[in-house]
Amino acid sequence: MGSRDLPLTGPEGEACTGAFPDAFRAQLNQLMRQRRDVRRFRRDPVDEAVLARCLTAIRLAPSVGLSEPWRLLRITSDAARAAALKNFEKANAEALAGYSGAQASLYAGLKLSGMRDAPVQLAIYCDDETAQGHGLGAATMPEMRRYSVVSAVTLFWLALRAEGLGLGWVSVLDPAQLNRDLQVPAGWHLVGYFCIGHPEELSDSPELERKGWENRQDSLKIETR
Amino acid sequence: MGSRDLPLTGPEGEACTGAFPDAFRAQLNQLMRQRRDVRRFRRDPVDEAVLARCLTAIRLAPSVGLSEPWRLLRITSDAARAAALKNFEKANAEALAGYSGAQASLYAGLKLSGMRDAPVQLAIYCDDETAQGHGLGAATMPEMRRYSVVSAVTLFWLALRAEGLGLGWVSVLDPAQLNRDLQVPAGWHLVGYFCIGHPEELSDSPELERKGWENRQDSLKIETR
Repeated sequence: MGSRDLPLTGPEGEACTGAFPDAFRAQLNQLMRQRRDVRRFRRDPVDEAVLARCLTAIRLAPSVGLSEPWRLLRITSDAARAAALKNFEKANAEALAGYSGAQASLYAGLKLSGMRDAPVQLAIYCDDETAQGHGLGAATMPEMRRYSVVSAVTLFWLALRAEGLGLGWVSVLDPAQLNRDLQVPAGWHLVGYFCIGHPEELSDSPELERKGWENRQDSLKIETR
Repeated sequence: MGSRDLPLTGPEGEACTGAFPDAFRAQLNQLMRQRRDVRRFRRDPVDEAVLARCLTAIRLAPSVGLSEPWRLLRITSDAARAAALKNFEKANAEALAGYSGAQASLYAGLKLSGMRDAPVQLAIYCDDETAQGHGLGAATMPEMRRYSVVSAVTLFWLALRAEGLGLGWVSVLDPAQLNRDLQVPAGWHLVGYFCIGHPEELSDSPELERKGWENRQDSLKIETR
């Protein structure tokens, strides 16, 4: 085990922009379209300075009561990587057993994790018991702390994609087993296991759609009250 | 009640960009720094075309198994707005009662919702029972559907801020009471209540920090395993 600290870099106190320029907004839309869940990675390493830059996006996320409940473990040892991979493979086999017929065949052909190849792997947790924020906003909805971590992951994901890197979110895992294997502190709740690296391919459509698992809806429906 | 549909606009199948340009990444960082939780809104209306553009960001979010579990209610009637405001005020009074001394005074002085002024208000839900996605990725971690909705809200928030608009996330609410008041379909789980409009002021630091409630940590700590 070990740890390292990333300071908040960049200016603060700069003048705030109202609306951002049209050209920026068009590129932001393009970034969101091209942000995909990546499961196919090249094995070459990620530049540590680029990774550090992307990680600072986490600190820019909204957090309930300013609780900043995100906790990160970087999975580097062979033992920890093997435990996480074994965990995924067992959970994935169990998930496959829940499907039948054509759907089972389709599921079996999906690649749902890049854990064998991705050079950077992070397990990201929520500290449900943090005193930071003094409980503000979390009394009625305690799940807000975990939601703060999800927002942080989303910003990190965009920052990575903007650097040409990919992220894959693995949720086919037994969190309790992973916590035991990684000796996770009490009170930490797994939000996700993340594979990061150079993607083998880029796309602006979801792999699950391209492989025939599911299609996106044609529109967003909004009811009024 | 009523509903309206927003189609997915913009190109698909365009060539994908690897790394985005330095200038774009600098502006993206600036956008993330200036994305704040807004509680002070002007009352003038939001341009509906701009709002519709921002809402399309929701459809670009990652969703577990491509389940797209986000469900949106736009709160427009006087009765629904009054019910939501009353709900917040009751929950906020109860939260205040949980603090004492200087912390109670500080809490009492915070403005935690813009519900009296924000021209656009949305209650955003997760459909925990959607069949879309066929359960992929959610067997081991069913909370993944709600996390997908949080990612969608985060993209929407960035899109709004890029247009010069603000969003405030209200979590000081009794979700069960709100569900009854809004006649929410069975199986929908409240992710958050959102105020949207033109912010009275812009900032690149959190209001909770400026008001002395809590400070951000100096750095992001990453442990290794």
